[in-house]
Amino acid sequence: MQRYFLESDYQSNQSLVITGEDYHHIVNVMRMPVGEVVYLSFHQQVTVTAEIIDITSSEVFLKEQKKEEQLKELPHQVAIACGYPKGDKLELVAQKGTELGMHQLLAFPSQTSVVKWDEKKRLKKEARLLKICKEAAEQSHRQQLPSVSLFPSFETFLKTTSKYDVVLVAYEESAKEGEQATFAQMIRSLPKESRVLVIFGPEGGISPKEIEQFEQIGAKKCGLGPRILRAETAPLYCLAAMSYQWELLG
Amino acid sequence: MQRYFLESDYQSNQSLVITGEDYHHIVNVMRMPVGEVVYLSFHQQVTVTAEIIDITSSEVFLKEQKKEEQLKELPHQVAIACGYPKGDKLELVAQKGTELGMHQLLAFPSQTSVVKWDEKKRLKKEARLLKICKEAAEQSHRQQLPSVSLFPSFETFLKTTSKYDVVLVAYEESAKEGEQATFAQMIRSLPKESRVLVIFGPEGGISPKEIEQFEQIGAKKCGLGPRILRAETAPLYCLAAMSYQWELLG
Repeated sequence: MQRYFLESDYQSNQSLVITGEDYHHIVNVMRMPVGEVVYLSFHQQVTVTAEIIDITSSEVFLKEQKKEEQLKELPHQVAIACGYPKGDKLELVAQKGTELGMHQLLAFPSQTSVVKWDEKKRLKKEARLLKICKEAAEQSHRQQLPSVSLFPSFETFLKTTSKYDVVLVAYEESAKEGEQATFAQMIRSLPKESRVLVIFGPEGGISPKEIEQFEQIGAKKCGLGPRILRAETAPLYCLAAMSYQWELLG
Repeated sequence: MQRYFLESDYQSNQSLVITGEDYHHIVNVMRMPVGEVVYLSFHQQVTVTAEIIDITSSEVFLKEQKKEEQLKELPHQVAIACGYPKGDKLELVAQKGTELGMHQLLAFPSQTSVVKWDEKKRLKKEARLLKICKEAAEQSHRQQLPSVSLFPSFETFLKTTSKYDVVLVAYEESAKEGEQATFAQMIRSLPKESRVLVIFGPEGGISPKEIEQFEQIGAKKCGLGPRILRAETAPLYCLAAMSYQWELLG
């Protein structure tokens, strides 16, 4: 069943109207008739099923049926932060990360980042990544849409890290030294509904200076197993391991 | 440090010579001088470091230094089997699966598979996937090269499943019904060095008839969490969760 994210808070007995891109998707792409039922996801992780009751030239009107009961979101809010990688790797992290339950995608210019994006390029990329997250969230039955923030500088990124309860840095050197205990220890001992930030380097890795700055703000270095994972693979490993620990082992 | 897979068994005091594509990589791509040290991985998971002692017009000669001690392979052999998916999704599973420790990549025509490959296309694709696995194995510091087998029919694939100690089927309906315990239970209770096969459907999922056939050969259905994962994402979730359970939780 198709899912759409509405950029509004849920109110009971409200009239449900879809316009714009989602209208286009319902009417022209999916060609849904009156009577079809879809999921509508609101802010604060509220999702309802709703039946299409009327379609005009620019609006789809729906009637709420019932709330979705099964919880589809990770029990902690996980933000993934990547040093700007090359090519379309952030696009892969946006799509797969959303499927795997990521709450926020952040990216920042790391010392070893090869790409340089001016403000125009950055905002364009941000909009594109958000669109990928939205499509993936609809397809994977998320109840919440991940947010996307591309930072203009390392310093502006570093400032936002204070918003999180726990900050981890995936560090290749930790993996090489066989240091594998920290990650499991950290994610198994989180207080309820923690905000977790996990930082990943670009292809060239995180520089020793950056590691020092992350450690100064209280970040813990951790390895993700004995194999060397690519810049775009490590965030997916991290999210899958978290889902396994929190949702399957419970 | 660069890693190369030699298609031979390890013998102590043997002369080490690299030719062909790996010669090209060492001499023309990496431009390594005499004195440079690389990893050489043999069959049976033996890896040594070796120093380049001479370079001719077609051969690189090396001298063994010492064996690699850290274990880089998963403690169980995990085969990933995918119903033929569309586009280049198998390429993504080959690359990321290798990084995540996959031992074998199998694929088969599932009832809902859209693509049809004749023998010529199949063998070409198999060679391409093996090349991707080799590159990913070198880059991620694997000690063993995953094998790749694309089956001509569902029946020939089904016959090979008897080679494995445990067969799991990732089934979307299990996930929808909230069935999340089987996967964790199964992977936590494996006898030492088990051969595990995990089967994934293509985009359209595994048909009820196929599920029935898999269950007849003793396969266990399992869900991989509450979100719906794409055909190419589910194998990566599975391998990351296994690595976390076996290598990080230990």
